[in-house]
Amino acid sequence: MSKSGSITAAGQNLWAKVPKANSELFALTYGSLITELIRDYDQNIPEINNQLDRIGYSIGVRCIDELFAKSEVNGVQIPSCRELRETAEVVAKIGFRMFLGVSCDVGKLTEKSFSLYLSENPLSIFVELPQNEVGVDGSSSHGPDWTQLKYSNVYCGVIRGALEQVNLKVECEFVGDMLQGDDVNEIKVEVKEVIADGAGEDYQEE
Amino acid sequence: MSKSGSITAAGQNLWAKVPKANSELFALTYGSLITELIRDYDQNIPEINNQLDRIGYSIGVRCIDELFAKSEVNGVQIPSCRELRETAEVVAKIGFRMFLGVSCDVGKLTEKSFSLYLSENPLSIFVELPQNEVGVDGSSSHGPDWTQLKYSNVYCGVIRGALEQVNLKVECEFVGDMLQGDDVNEIKVEVKEVIADGAGEDYQEE
Repeated sequence: MSKSGSITAAGQNLWAKVPKANSELFALTYGSLITELIRDYDQNIPEINNQLDRIGYSIGVRCIDELFAKSEVNGVQIPSCRELRETAEVVAKIGFRMFLGVSCDVGKLTEKSFSLYLSENPLSIFVELPQNEVGVDGSSSHGPDWTQLKYSNVYCGVIRGALEQVNLKVECEFVGDMLQGDDVNEIKVEVKEVIADGAGEDYQEE
Repeated sequence: MSKSGSITAAGQNLWAKVPKANSELFALTYGSLITELIRDYDQNIPEINNQLDRIGYSIGVRCIDELFAKSEVNGVQIPSCRELRETAEVVAKIGFRMFLGVSCDVGKLTEKSFSLYLSENPLSIFVELPQNEVGVDGSSSHGPDWTQLKYSNVYCGVIRGALEQVNLKVECEFVGDMLQGDDVNEIKVEVKEVIADGAGEDYQEE
């Protein structure tokens, strides 16, 4: 089996073994979280995007632990990621499969970055974003600019949190969003730093 | 097949058909919602319990729609609930199964009330509630009283919202919580009013 094929198989294997909940209930619960943030941060859209990233980060730190624990218990081998291509494949074919049951594709691979393409986004079922308010004279009003909302920005935080645990400091950005009318959901991941092993330990002690 | 057996089968049938996500990710996302509420409502525990009930209510209204839609698409018959016993069984064996994949039992049935027992609670995996702060002299401090937190109170709102859509006004209370050291998770459901059909329509127009 090709390496990429075995990564896909590992993802499907883990997905088959994890406990599951209805993904519609999951989407509704995530929607409640978004609603709370909109209320809490007074419709400040950039701040809501930041908060989603922050929340995702703490979830991602737990997710990578779960990924390693479950793969060990179930005898599923996670390839050691020597090249960024492999890291990207593990995130796409094992991470997204194991936690969301969806397929995710890798593209635009360079030495320092890659994109993840998500054709199905379980977080956004049922969702329709509000239209921006328009003033009576047709001018844009002072309401929030919903076109700036990165509804699924939690993914960026999750990826950032998970990869940091394996010594890869990345920046993630939701650059294509079907909720905003884009053709595809695209998350751009850019490596900023490969943390030395010792630094990782210091970090944990903080 | 007995009526109760066929309700169980209907629940399992629907569970097999619904789209799924990893329930650990679901639990972590619910945990983030709780954290936001604790921050937003400044550790006011009774208010956090209320907010969870309110959030659950809107989720429940959607869940019952999904339950009817999915059962129609999949040719699964939901028994018409003429007696409270049947309503309780549908909530336990179809509702909890279809959305959480867990089994739930009915007990303490009276003409106007019943209890739901949840031996597994997918929301509370990973959760350990904080201990109340104790003053240096051993007195209880002014910190929040975590023993009052109904971590899974969203269930009460969900049941209340869902049953109101089928003309049953209920009050729900989380009366036993394994997170708080109780032997079992118990949700008490008490019928307050059977809404006349016309009233339901008025309600929707509001």
